[in-house]
Amino acid sequence: MSKTIFVLNGPNLNLLGTREPAVYGSQSLNDIERDCRETAKELGFDVDFRQSNHEGDLVDWIQEAREKAAAVIINAGAYTHTSIALHDALRSVDMPAVEVHLSNIHAREAFRQVSTISAVVTGTIFGFGSHSYILAVRAVAAAL
Amino acid sequence: MSKTIFVLNGPNLNLLGTREPAVYGSQSLNDIERDCRETAKELGFDVDFRQSNHEGDLVDWIQEAREKAAAVIINAGAYTHTSIALHDALRSVDMPAVEVHLSNIHAREAFRQVSTISAVVTGTIFGFGSHSYILAVRAVAAAL
Amino acid sequence: MSKTIFVLNGPNLNLLGTREPAVYGSQSLNDIERDCRETAKELGFDVDFRQSNHEGDLVDWIQEAREKAAAVIINAGAYTHTSIALHDALRSVDMPAVEVHLSNIHAREAFRQVSTISAVVTGTIFGFGSHSYILAVRAVAAAL
Amino acid sequence: MSKTIFVLNGPNLNLLGTREPAVYGSQSLNDIERDCRETAKELGFDVDFRQSNHEGDLVDWIQEAREKAAAVIINAGAYTHTSIALHDALRSVDMPAVEVHLSNIHAREAFRQVSTISAVVTGTIFGFGSHSYILAVRAVAAAL
Amino acid sequence: MSKTIFVLNGPNLNLLGTREPAVYGSQSLNDIERDCRETAKELGFDVDFRQSNHEGDLVDWIQEAREKAAAVIINAGAYTHTSIALHDALRSVDMPAVEVHLSNIHAREAFRQVSTISAVVTGTIFGFGSHSYILAVRAVAAAL
Amino acid sequence: MSKTIFVLNGPNLNLLGTREPAVYGSQSLNDIERDCRETAKELGFDVDFRQSNHEGDLVDWIQEAREKAAAVIINAGAYTHTSIALHDALRSVDMPAVEVHLSNIHAREAFRQVSTISAVVTGTIFGFGSHSYILAVRAVAAAL
Amino acid sequence: MSKTIFVLNGPNLNLLGTREPAVYGSQSLNDIERDCRETAKELGFDVDFRQSNHEGDLVDWIQEAREKAAAVIINAGAYTHTSIALHDALRSVDMPAVEVHLSNIHAREAFRQVSTISAVVTGTIFGFGSHSYILAVRAVAAAL
Amino acid sequence: MSKTIFVLNGPNLNLLGTREPAVYGSQSLNDIERDCRETAKELGFDVDFRQSNHEGDLVDWIQEAREKAAAVIINAGAYTHTSIALHDALRSVDMPAVEVHLSNIHAREAFRQVSTISAVVTGTIFGFGSHSYILAVRAVAAAL
Amino acid sequence: MSKTIFVLNGPNLNLLGTREPAVYGSQSLNDIERDCRETAKELGFDVDFRQSNHEGDLVDWIQEAREKAAAVIINAGAYTHTSIALHDALRSVDMPAVEVHLSNIHAREAFRQVSTISAVVTGTIFGFGSHSYILAVRAVAAAL
Amino acid sequence: MSKTIFVLNGPNLNLLGTREPAVYGSQSLNDIERDCRETAKELGFDVDFRQSNHEGDLVDWIQEAREKAAAVIINAGAYTHTSIALHDALRSVDMPAVEVHLSNIHAREAFRQVSTISAVVTGTIFGFGSHSYILAVRAVAAAL
Amino acid sequence: MSKTIFVLNGPNLNLLGTREPAVYGSQSLNDIERDCRETAKELGFDVDFRQSNHEGDLVDWIQEAREKAAAVIINAGAYTHTSIALHDALRSVDMPAVEVHLSNIHAREAFRQVSTISAVVTGTIFGFGSHSYILAVRAVAAAL
Amino acid sequence: MSKTIFVLNGPNLNLLGTREPAVYGSQSLNDIERDCRETAKELGFDVDFRQSNHEGDLVDWIQEAREKAAAVIINAGAYTHTSIALHDALRSVDMPAVEVHLSNIHAREAFRQVSTISAVVTGTIFGFGSHSYILAVRAVAAAL
Repeated sequence: MSKTIFVLNGPNLNLLGTREPAVYGSQSLNDIERDCRETAKELGFDVDFRQSNHEGDLVDWIQEAREKAAAVIINAGAYTHTSIALHDALRSVDMPAVEVHLSNIHAREAFRQVSTISAVVTGTIFGFGSHSYILAVRAVAAAL
Repeated sequence: MSKTIFVLNGPNLNLLGTREPAVYGSQSLNDIERDCRETAKELGFDVDFRQSNHEGDLVDWIQEAREKAAAVIINAGAYTHTSIALHDALRSVDMPAVEVHLSNIHAREAFRQVSTISAVVTGTIFGFGSHSYILAVRAVAAAL
Repeated sequence: MSKTIFVLNGPNLNLLGTREPAVYGSQSLNDIERDCRETAKELGFDVDFRQSNHEGDLVDWIQEAREKAAAVIINAGAYTHTSIALHDALRSVDMPAVEVHLSNIHAREAFRQVSTISAVVTGTIFGFGSHSYILAVRAVAAAL
Repeated sequence: MSKTIFVLNGPNLNLLGTREPAVYGSQSLNDIERDCRETAKELGFDVDFRQSNHEGDLVDWIQEAREKAAAVIINAGAYTHTSIALHDALRSVDMPAVEVHLSNIHAREAFRQVSTISAVVTGTIFGFGSHSYILAVRAVAAAL
Repeated sequence: MSKTIFVLNGPNLNLLGTREPAVYGSQSLNDIERDCRETAKELGFDVDFRQSNHEGDLVDWIQEAREKAAAVIINAGAYTHTSIALHDALRSVDMPAVEVHLSNIHAREAFRQVSTISAVVTGTIFGFGSHSYILAVRAVAAAL
Repeated sequence: MSKTIFVLNGPNLNLLGTREPAVYGSQSLNDIERDCRETAKELGFDVDFRQSNHEGDLVDWIQEAREKAAAVIINAGAYTHTSIALHDALRSVDMPAVEVHLSNIHAREAFRQVSTISAVVTGTIFGFGSHSYILAVRAVAAAL
Repeated sequence: MSKTIFVLNGPNLNLLGTREPAVYGSQSLNDIERDCRETAKELGFDVDFRQSNHEGDLVDWIQEAREKAAAVIINAGAYTHTSIALHDALRSVDMPAVEVHLSNIHAREAFRQVSTISAVVTGTIFGFGSHSYILAVRAVAAAL
Repeated sequence: MSKTIFVLNGPNLNLLGTREPAVYGSQSLNDIERDCRETAKELGFDVDFRQSNHEGDLVDWIQEAREKAAAVIINAGAYTHTSIALHDALRSVDMPAVEVHLSNIHAREAFRQVSTISAVVTGTIFGFGSHSYILAVRAVAAAL
Repeated sequence: MSKTIFVLNGPNLNLLGTREPAVYGSQSLNDIERDCRETAKELGFDVDFRQSNHEGDLVDWIQEAREKAAAVIINAGAYTHTSIALHDALRSVDMPAVEVHLSNIHAREAFRQVSTISAVVTGTIFGFGSHSYILAVRAVAAAL
Repeated sequence: MSKTIFVLNGPNLNLLGTREPAVYGSQSLNDIERDCRETAKELGFDVDFRQSNHEGDLVDWIQEAREKAAAVIINAGAYTHTSIALHDALRSVDMPAVEVHLSNIHAREAFRQVSTISAVVTGTIFGFGSHSYILAVRAVAAAL
Repeated sequence: MSKTIFVLNGPNLNLLGTREPAVYGSQSLNDIERDCRETAKELGFDVDFRQSNHEGDLVDWIQEAREKAAAVIINAGAYTHTSIALHDALRSVDMPAVEVHLSNIHAREAFRQVSTISAVVTGTIFGFGSHSYILAVRAVAAAL
Repeated sequence: MSKTIFVLNGPNLNLLGTREPAVYGSQSLNDIERDCRETAKELGFDVDFRQSNHEGDLVDWIQEAREKAAAVIINAGAYTHTSIALHDALRSVDMPAVEVHLSNIHAREAFRQVSTISAVVTGTIFGFGSHSYILAVRAVAAAL
């Protein structure tokens, strides 16, 4: 069985650390990748960490996970709130899947309080900054 | 005049046969392509059959159809319910265009009962499984 | 097993050919009956073709179909958008049932874009003028 | 040209005079028929005055008016608020058509403030008790 | 004073016992009529038990009840959720009137959780299968 | 008792005859005033005919009518759809009050289908062009 | 098996007889308790009759019913319209449960026409004044 | 500084293990308490674990946490979806606060997809069964 | 510093005492002016008391208050529910501002339960009849 | 007749002075109690001042007021926005009742702009900080 | 042909420079008038620049523009969001008309994001502070 | 500092000149590019003009603008109405950004009247055909 956790990041997450640090913190996406990798390693997993601004790429990668990954962690960024394509893709994966967000999306604009994918993942973790990812790695490790 | 029917398929339809067969049937997208091709041939047409998880690809292809195709059949998958870009692209084609769905989208979740493209196609056919495509080929053949 | 397809038509469809030909075409309901009969015959079926302005008649006929018909094709006209009685009647039939419309109901007023019966039929075909009926006959023949 | 005005009355209007006189007045439907007839006669028209509790009957009669009447006056009663079949039937008539109500429907429950037929008649008169009918007879006479 | 209770049944209730027994139970409408008759008899009443798929028939019968009945029990079936004509007819009766449903309409689809007639009957009983009718007979007997 | 009917006209009605004649007809407001005056005279009344683009003027005039008029006919134009001040003013008058519109406001934009004043007038007449005013004069004459 | 029926009453029901008698009748809660007890006794059951203004007490008592009662009859008063805690508690009981109301809640304010618990009880009875409780006792007795 | 984490549980959570195990799992609340205690101990904290069916108790306890606790973890059960009192109480605490749910509340009824408290906690974790609590303990430990 | 309190009254308030005394009381606006003047005098202020049916006048006067007044008390009448111009004007004043209403606007029609100005005044007082004004005078005196 | 005014305070108001002083001011609830007591004394009344986080306690106390109090002043805190139980309790009291709030609830979140109790109190005062209570004491004193 | 551009300003715009400079900038309306005049002059036009707090004045002026102006630039201030009278007036002008706003109305309250007049002007420019007016002058000059 | 203005065009704008010229004008996108370039040059800037049917490309390019551009002008086409990814990307740019549209989007379908990006750009210009772009170039030049 695969020991790889796919960690997929959606649009504008590559700007982390430079974009609205008051909301998203000062860590870069590279920092988060490194932290995920360390926690995963400690728990016997490795991590395939990706980012794209294209909704279609995220769909492609979730489909790829069906073949190659043990679990999916996804921060779909802005697509969280509108993408039915991601909903359908995640519904088709037969493995632990966790939705994460850095910020507390319920303390922000109304349009960020709707997630099209929550209903089709195992569980959701948000509001803990980059630590949301670490908790997600622990969650999928525990589930596997 | 072109004798080619573009049959365009949206996100996650490449998973057909493996994804929720209770809803979508056990045929693969290849099976559907073969059936379309046979019916089209019998009626004097050929078929250009494509699939993508990217909304932009579907828009590109509809624009391409303006030049190269006699008609468009589209199963826009999840983009059916949200894409205004597809609406605009389809509104610009001056040829028969048919929206198809495998499942009866009105017997499913509320968000699948809204189509942004129905208003700008010639007609819509859904609920007959892969046979929806065959009926669509017949419909465009009759219209041409 | 019965070889009869009930083709049921709702309110004002008897005016076809005289009422708003720009929307509904110039064919009369008699023309459509004749076309359905020919296609059905070719496929080994016959057709029982009826029209009424009374919602209750349509309910009675669907119940009658449970006993006498192999399949039901219904253009419920204006009752499409409000009738729960038709919804319940169609839900009780254990045979292929197809909803048809002449016009593209999604390119018209908002109140015509809601169908109470779509969720309980096998599939739906609309927008192809009188050809919608022919496709429906083919659809039920293929299903039987 | 026909000199007959069809005056069509919907469900429960046969109870006039006995049902909630505070709202609908103490005149019976016969009284109203007599008043309409007199005003029409004075203006050179006669009146075909009917009532039914069946939506389908009202549709049948409007279709009949296309052949036999010079104008239609309709108090569709409760069907005013829900019937798309009446909307479609009235849209197909090519003559003056007036919607009337005895009571001021905008001073009553919210569900009585919606009319599916107002958009497809020539004009609407309500709130004047049985005098609404007399004004409607004058209105169609003036239009003819 | 009349000792007759009108028990009026709306569309598709004649299919009871054959239609979705998991929802509506296995008793036929004849069984329910017999049970009502027995309970009524025991309490000194008789029962006039009717069914129609036509909204207009139900309106006619409620008007007839004004003359001939001591009370009305009505299961308006699908018309429960949309009929203002029934609302108006029931509002005009000056006697106990009870709305019944076999199933728990609040544990079903959203559109079945709206009743246009609840506001104008004495009371409502639902969810007890055919026993809902028996309780209604007891309720009107107690009220008379 | 006063024999004067106040006929009050709201914003932009002074443009009648020049503004969108397809919707509002080719008669000027002066023509309508003359017609009202003639009909009123024939029925034993005279007319005080006014127009203003200011909501406050209309409120002032309705208050003035409480002292000086026998009845009020009002075409509040655009203020029809939003003015609670007119609603309150009309609610305070203790005489016949009729709302008129030239066009069929229910065949136009959704925002024109809401009237804040219908609930507080005696009755409403719309869709008959300038003849709506004549019918209104007749209606108030009959009521007085 | 327990022969005790829990009859639970929510906020302000202790004021019965003194609070708005036009709506709730002149019987006190003690009168209703006595009537329930008599009917239950006649049918071989006894009654544990309670009232509280605290939502938490009602939840506690429904949980207690899981251990000690044969059935639950509940008039949750104002909590009927907002309490998900009661919904969850009632969903966990594995015995007949009946929702009752004294008044016809559908003939009152809109906020009283929503019940959070109807979907999770066996059935609902309302509008018969204190007799609603008696019918409920009969309903649970018949079900047991 | 306090080393105690308050873990507060709302209505019906005391039924865990017996109520709908398909949704909530087979662990009892005691099992969860034990697991929390172990993880907390390992991280240098202890746990004060409570449950109540009373909204007021939860408010009282959150206020108590302001004095005595280092952090709050709360599964407010049904009160999650309606309680503004909990929102206000949590807004007043100046320490890490985590909302947890056992089930994936976004894969359930619409009314469970609204949380009044998400906006005022540090973060939210749901869908991991009893493991949601463990992750919450880790989250607050990391934050302190 | 100015010792003048502007007390501004909107449309139809000049009718007080004659218009719906059951709702608005029998005091005239002059009576209220006198009472305000007395209370203000007692507290060391004088009053500039005005009324207009014109929204623009109220805006003009609020702007004038910026120069000349110590505080503003406003009963905007019907404009309370729709005027953004008043909202903007009040937002620009840098002094105590109090919204008053004679009647309990929350016990009346839904459209009277929305105030566009509440958010930009210091506070709001309603339901105490003419005493609402006295309390407002006391409130601004205390604030100054 | 009783000379006692019940002043009832809802959830989290015991935190006044420590919780969000920018919104609620720096006075403690004790300070407000003292001020109410002084003003009441001066006007010949005494005050029974209470606070609870339990909705049921507030209902109990309002019922108690029916026996013991001359008037009720209530700041229901968060329960203001959701409690129908308080609505019903207040509707049953036959004495002056005033709703107060410290802050301007209309300048805050949307959910704080709805009050379930405004419609059933005599009047409402909000936005004046602790002075809202003083004005309320004056208001009930004037009414008694 | 006229060379005059009417520049019309609605309520509270006369306060520019003193009211919320953070939102509206520090320029006065006189400054904007001067800038408009200069740009217009440079392009061969002159400017008639007006301001009123009265909706009716704006309607009067737009009607006047039909006679005297070459184009209309309008900042309707608060009336932008509610005035159908302005909508109707602008619809009647047969010349370039531009809607301007100083601030970015879409970055502000929801009620400022609705414009009743956008649909009937040539185009809209907002968010550039006083420069919005300059761009509008250029836009109408280019169009003429 | 960069002197380059990014002018970014969304889906289907490459069809300009051929698609619905009545709505979008007869100019091609090349014509618009040429006009922008000329105006920019005149004002001392150059233009990087791009078009894509892919939402992700537009996001990539806005991110690229953060490094390379002095300002961004964007006509996001159909993505204007749904894209939160563009909203987030534009929010992260620290330079003038202008939203443009060729047509008056408020005179078209309701779904085109919502823009997800207006709130995060400097300002918006629409309705002037290709001249909207020229005005935008002037606007950013003035801002820089």
